[in-house]
Amino acid sequence: MPVDFLITKTELALAYRSVRQMTNRLCQSLTPEDCCIQSMPDASPTRWHLAHTTWFFQTFVLANLSTTSENANSFRYLFNSYYNAVGDQFPRDQRGLLSRPTVAEVYGYRDEVDDAMYDLLENVGNLSPDLVALIVLGINHEQQHQELMLTDIKHAFSINPLKPIFRDDLFELTSETFDTDPTEYSLTNPSNWYEFSEGVYSVGVPSEKVAETSFCFDNERPAQRVFSNGYRIAKRLVTNREFLEFVLDDGYRDSRLWLAQGWDIVQRANRQTPIYWQQSDGQWREFTLAGMQVLQPDRPVSHVSYFEADAFARWAGKRLPTEFEWEIACCERSAEGTNFCDWLIAEGLAIHPRAEASVSSLMGNLWQWSSSSYAAYPGFSPAPGAVGEYNGKFMCNQYVLRGGSVATSGNHVRATYRNFFPTDTRWQFTGIRLAE
Amino acid sequence: MPVDFLITKTELALAYRSVRQMTNRLCQSLTPEDCCIQSMPDASPTRWHLAHTTWFFQTFVLANLSTTSENANSFRYLFNSYYNAVGDQFPRDQRGLLSRPTVAEVYGYRDEVDDAMYDLLENVGNLSPDLVALIVLGINHEQQHQELMLTDIKHAFSINPLKPIFRDDLFELTSETFDTDPTEYSLTNPSNWYEFSEGVYSVGVPSEKVAETSFCFDNERPAQRVFSNGYRIAKRLVTNREFLEFVLDDGYRDSRLWLAQGWDIVQRANRQTPIYWQQSDGQWREFTLAGMQVLQPDRPVSHVSYFEADAFARWAGKRLPTEFEWEIACCERSAEGTNFCDWLIAEGLAIHPRAEASVSSLMGNLWQWSSSSYAAYPGFSPAPGAVGEYNGKFMCNQYVLRGGSVATSGNHVRATYRNFFPTDTRWQFTGIRLAE
Amino acid sequence: MPVDFLITKTELALAYRSVRQMTNRLCQSLTPEDCCIQSMPDASPTRWHLAHTTWFFQTFVLANLSTTSENANSFRYLFNSYYNAVGDQFPRDQRGLLSRPTVAEVYGYRDEVDDAMYDLLENVGNLSPDLVALIVLGINHEQQHQELMLTDIKHAFSINPLKPIFRDDLFELTSETFDTDPTEYSLTNPSNWYEFSEGVYSVGVPSEKVAETSFCFDNERPAQRVFSNGYRIAKRLVTNREFLEFVLDDGYRDSRLWLAQGWDIVQRANRQTPIYWQQSDGQWREFTLAGMQVLQPDRPVSHVSYFEADAFARWAGKRLPTEFEWEIACCERSAEGTNFCDWLIAEGLAIHPRAEASVSSLMGNLWQWSSSSYAAYPGFSPAPGAVGEYNGKFMCNQYVLRGGSVATSGNHVRATYRNFFPTDTRWQFTGIRLAE
Amino acid sequence: MPVDFLITKTELALAYRSVRQMTNRLCQSLTPEDCCIQSMPDASPTRWHLAHTTWFFQTFVLANLSTTSENANSFRYLFNSYYNAVGDQFPRDQRGLLSRPTVAEVYGYRDEVDDAMYDLLENVGNLSPDLVALIVLGINHEQQHQELMLTDIKHAFSINPLKPIFRDDLFELTSETFDTDPTEYSLTNPSNWYEFSEGVYSVGVPSEKVAETSFCFDNERPAQRVFSNGYRIAKRLVTNREFLEFVLDDGYRDSRLWLAQGWDIVQRANRQTPIYWQQSDGQWREFTLAGMQVLQPDRPVSHVSYFEADAFARWAGKRLPTEFEWEIACCERSAEGTNFCDWLIAEGLAIHPRAEASVSSLMGNLWQWSSSSYAAYPGFSPAPGAVGEYNGKFMCNQYVLRGGSVATSGNHVRATYRNFFPTDTRWQFTGIRLAE
Repeated sequence: MPVDFLITKTELALAYRSVRQMTNRLCQSLTPEDCCIQSMPDASPTRWHLAHTTWFFQTFVLANLSTTSENANSFRYLFNSYYNAVGDQFPRDQRGLLSRPTVAEVYGYRDEVDDAMYDLLENVGNLSPDLVALIVLGINHEQQHQELMLTDIKHAFSINPLKPIFRDDLFELTSETFDTDPTEYSLTNPSNWYEFSEGVYSVGVPSEKVAETSFCFDNERPAQRVFSNGYRIAKRLVTNREFLEFVLDDGYRDSRLWLAQGWDIVQRANRQTPIYWQQSDGQWREFTLAGMQVLQPDRPVSHVSYFEADAFARWAGKRLPTEFEWEIACCERSAEGTNFCDWLIAEGLAIHPRAEASVSSLMGNLWQWSSSSYAAYPGFSPAPGAVGEYNGKFMCNQYVLRGGSVATSGNHVRATYRNFFPTDTRWQFTGIRLAE
Repeated sequence: MPVDFLITKTELALAYRSVRQMTNRLCQSLTPEDCCIQSMPDASPTRWHLAHTTWFFQTFVLANLSTTSENANSFRYLFNSYYNAVGDQFPRDQRGLLSRPTVAEVYGYRDEVDDAMYDLLENVGNLSPDLVALIVLGINHEQQHQELMLTDIKHAFSINPLKPIFRDDLFELTSETFDTDPTEYSLTNPSNWYEFSEGVYSVGVPSEKVAETSFCFDNERPAQRVFSNGYRIAKRLVTNREFLEFVLDDGYRDSRLWLAQGWDIVQRANRQTPIYWQQSDGQWREFTLAGMQVLQPDRPVSHVSYFEADAFARWAGKRLPTEFEWEIACCERSAEGTNFCDWLIAEGLAIHPRAEASVSSLMGNLWQWSSSSYAAYPGFSPAPGAVGEYNGKFMCNQYVLRGGSVATSGNHVRATYRNFFPTDTRWQFTGIRLAE
Repeated sequence: MPVDFLITKTELALAYRSVRQMTNRLCQSLTPEDCCIQSMPDASPTRWHLAHTTWFFQTFVLANLSTTSENANSFRYLFNSYYNAVGDQFPRDQRGLLSRPTVAEVYGYRDEVDDAMYDLLENVGNLSPDLVALIVLGINHEQQHQELMLTDIKHAFSINPLKPIFRDDLFELTSETFDTDPTEYSLTNPSNWYEFSEGVYSVGVPSEKVAETSFCFDNERPAQRVFSNGYRIAKRLVTNREFLEFVLDDGYRDSRLWLAQGWDIVQRANRQTPIYWQQSDGQWREFTLAGMQVLQPDRPVSHVSYFEADAFARWAGKRLPTEFEWEIACCERSAEGTNFCDWLIAEGLAIHPRAEASVSSLMGNLWQWSSSSYAAYPGFSPAPGAVGEYNGKFMCNQYVLRGGSVATSGNHVRATYRNFFPTDTRWQFTGIRLAE
Repeated sequence: MPVDFLITKTELALAYRSVRQMTNRLCQSLTPEDCCIQSMPDASPTRWHLAHTTWFFQTFVLANLSTTSENANSFRYLFNSYYNAVGDQFPRDQRGLLSRPTVAEVYGYRDEVDDAMYDLLENVGNLSPDLVALIVLGINHEQQHQELMLTDIKHAFSINPLKPIFRDDLFELTSETFDTDPTEYSLTNPSNWYEFSEGVYSVGVPSEKVAETSFCFDNERPAQRVFSNGYRIAKRLVTNREFLEFVLDDGYRDSRLWLAQGWDIVQRANRQTPIYWQQSDGQWREFTLAGMQVLQPDRPVSHVSYFEADAFARWAGKRLPTEFEWEIACCERSAEGTNFCDWLIAEGLAIHPRAEASVSSLMGNLWQWSSSSYAAYPGFSPAPGAVGEYNGKFMCNQYVLRGGSVATSGNHVRATYRNFFPTDTRWQFTGIRLAE
């Protein structure tokens, strides 16, 4: 997996430093206690993210360089996520049962590995293309975990009756996304849909494109041609107002709207709303990283599962787009679709208002469920070595999400990026875009 | 869902009678005790199949005709499988906890409904197209359950230490499938592969075709165009001999070969072979409907899960075909691919040797896992009414199987038929066809 | 374990024949389907009881006599309940997954073993005391299973929506147990209590008594002295009327009345009444072996768990008696307490009215929960050999029941008999006698 | 529950302060991360213990005194353990999922409640007997939690692959318990047993005794007379050396030694040694609060379940004593049995060598499993009000432990004290004393 785009060693060092510092900044409002808890098997403690992203560089980049201390060596087992080729793993669902190493010790571990990396990036001679590729992968890997750190701590806080606040200077989405009459953006209005005609389209990242631009994951490649029927895709995401209509119309009580597995879960768990919604005193609220907040009707509905997205679409007489329909639309409308801004880097975590981006753009607000099961592109080949376990072995019983969310690193918000989660996932920043 | 192909009332009556009688004949070697047991939640007791297929006609065809007795009415709840629109269902995993109605009473119920159906088909005047469509659907539905009756009783018998024999005059597959040197049919020999070039192909059942031929399920329609890269697909199924090589090469111990979910199952359940294989005294055997039998190396390997099929393919340096690659191959090679014969009807259950069909044909031996997640074709619309719950609501977290098995009704063995099961399914007659 | 009481070989043969035939008669209203089902892990299929009681004689009495066929040998594993010394056991919770051997084959197995036993009892010369002891144990063991056959099939039928009837000529308890004003037997009336003064009492079966009378189980011995405070014990069982008051007084909603484990179960399982009670159309009914019946207010409440019995007692301001308080009362009042009659043998299953026995006697109506945890008597020694596993290894986390029920063999209804079940057991014929 | 022994307000204030400070001192080596984790549902995070013991005073003593802040009020739900009369409880098995309030906030909560308590104890006028009783109960309750804090953190550390050290200046038991030849203290030597003759003995705390001495729990009363057969009880606890013999003699593989439930657990969980034992490089080690340590053969075996203690006793041809046999022995031999010293208070946590106490005394080393199921003494009445839920509702399916451990507060180490745990409990400081 030699890197196939141009990056100077200086650029690489800068990117490394920037991402590592951003991770640390992300956690600055958390106590040691916050960093320890794991609220469900799918989520991980903050401390684990801090250590695992470091472990990645230690294991895949620095392994043969004798730069790691004995202390760090003892973490080889503790912070391996799922790389069987590297060795056994501490059970995923027990990550919250460990109090040691402490958070401070994990920061020490980060510093130790950073020092070795800086030494590599600044003092050592030329790096092999393979090593550069691994470093770039590690940087992108850590950016993915930055988003997970936010979704995991949000879930952990949500089950605490005290409803802690992660940061109150941070709004997950701007509050004034539509300053006009809701009827204006009604989906019964044809002008609120993009339309595409049938034909053979190319999707994914072509080889030449990689070379000239930047990093992509192995699952975005190779580019492939797909035949698409003509279709229409909504210009905006479904809003809380619309989803509340579905709730009040007994959408969660009508078996005909649901896939069989989804209906089974709805009944067993007695689901009645999206995960973070609560109603009290006649007021709908939702739990956010800024604590409990009044539900904003004109924001996009968030934290819905594939089952909820699919049921809503059926109720609305529409459907979810395939991942290719989404990508085609995104490529064709890139001028309109990419006016998000990268809050994580540019704004030091404080999200600024981004009126256009929040609802009307295709990317950067919420991940959007596609109707496509996560699968390899024809000709897919995983990266060689242990890091090749990264994407391929999950290509089963998961669905593709597209678009990136407010918590996604800016350089991950691209037309070809394929996120994926199981169908009952609700703790990610996931929304709904309709097609027909 | 009016039926969209020509069938006379006489033909309909004949088909109804034939299928209903075949179901009864299928069970003739079973004791009442055999008909009661449910060996796992996925399987159902024989008696339940006998009753549920009858319930279908009672509920969807005869419901408004006042032809059912009070007794039969009490079965409305007991034998509903999953039709929420019809009403609540007795819990699926508790079907084996019921001893009443007895098997004899269920046969009485069958007779009662048959009498009403014969009256409808022979004495009543013209049938509406909708009613004809429901009857045709019910006939095909019962044929599907005929196969499930065989796979379910096979599983139930397999866990009994006495290893009962369903029928010893019935061979699941002929024993002499290859009378030549195994090297002749080696997959390293290019002549054992079909090859297809890239292009846009049409798959599924087009409207005009339905009209002129016969029944198909809603999930086979509408026809759609797909873009396919060039590919090769094996002329034959993977054999026991080849799968045993995988086993002996520690295929079940090598995490790199497995999807993450599959690997998790292999480890937790300590899986080491296909479900019905056993080794004792240095001899490999497999459980069959004729009891324990010596494993035949040249028969196709059967009863493998999607995970096992996928791992084997990776071990062999190949992959599974998509469902469209399979269908394209099947349509192009129909002359070669359809020389199976319908043992269920023509042979009175006794399978005759079918040398060509058993391994070298595309259809009629074993269901073949495709790499395609089960999803709606673009433009899919479920049948109206309660029967519309049949296919659509399962389009999630299952994979498509193609080709039909030795236990499949002959008229279900067609190029467009889409069977589907979850990835860990092992008790169906499922095999492996490789692609590359 | 040589038998320590006098029994002639003729008496032994007669007892054997009588009990074996009674078991067969008990099942005469059951279909083969009924005999197969296992409605929960605690219960067993009728067929299993038929076979296991036979297995006992085959294994412990006939093992060295070469009287069992090859067929019977294959049952050695299938019908072992829990005797580790004999070998492995087929998993208890999967007994309902077996359809073979069929019920008819099991009857054949019974006949085969019976023939060998008759040969032993009638033709062979003198039997060793050890062998006599094992045969007597086997007879008593089979009588215990007779009661389980009734409670297990009752539970199995109870979950069938068709509510099958085991026998409609059989009443579990007579309907006219109290023909007088309920106030007459009110427990506020001191005359409805027996009273005993403090002192050292002897309980259990003393050695000399065994010798002169009859069989007892190892857990009834040796006799021991216990110190008892003075106490009062109710002359009769708690009635449905009284338990309904508890239900209507929100007894199932008041945590203060329940042991912590019981309260946990009540909440998780949303329990609101005894297991077989149902209310519909303003009428309380209970499921019986004669199907659904109107709840008779003056019959003793039945099928309550230890938790329910204990909570009721606390609600009533009383407590449950210890097993010794019960036994002391029973011995002192034996004249009053033993006027039950042995329906199983004398009445051919049809229970006749037994006015005095049904409520006012200490024994023979319902098992009565004591507050005593099941433990060994000081000096307890289990029987030698594999049959010694019978009682001792269950002396943990179970509670003692005393008195015998309408389904108990008459010769098991004795003052010293110790039945035992876990605290949440509800499918046995269990009632409540209060103490204070 | 007015206190029935004499205590001055000054003594009460002193005791309160002493115990509260001891709790804080106990945690001084723990990081905030350590204080958060819950390694299994039975255990609780240290922080929870710190808060719950405080909640007790807030709720039961200060409730009507308006001394608690709004902040503290929000903890009313979070830190209720199981008092239904007080209100709902946060789920016990999720205590480790909370990061807030932080450990520092919990210490603040402790200070706040302490201030209110000091005000009550030093400034307010006379206290009602009821209030004094509640304060005394709260003090004893907190001492119980001090022991749980140690056992819970020991378990939490034990599952961490880094094997953290709680304190290395603290030895759980002295290392030189027997400086002589092991044969000298062999249990085959009659001089190593106490012997008692049959008779009626009195156990429990008589009313007059309470008045003249000090606090006891409701479950120690009222005193009762019991009849005891003659028996012998070992002068010392079973050692690691002896238990290792049992292990090496395949004690964990021999079903005949085990109660049925215990055998089931041994097989399912593949148990082979006590919970904290490990063998590597031919060396036996055990996890302690001072980290992994070489197993000392002459120390008493610790952390065994009731099942393990019972199986060992059967293997040794002995049995466990009843709780009354233990108490009789303890009372008769009090001169020999009470020479432990209260390390928690006197030594500031550092355990000093106590040669006689460690093995040869009846009390103060390890809790000792009795064969007695935990039940109410005749005439038991729970304390009035919510605190009455404390002991009574657990009197079911648990077994009594006697004697106190090295982690038990000195004033809890008394002859009548009844500790209780379920039969599979292994994380407490539990050992084995044999009887016969």
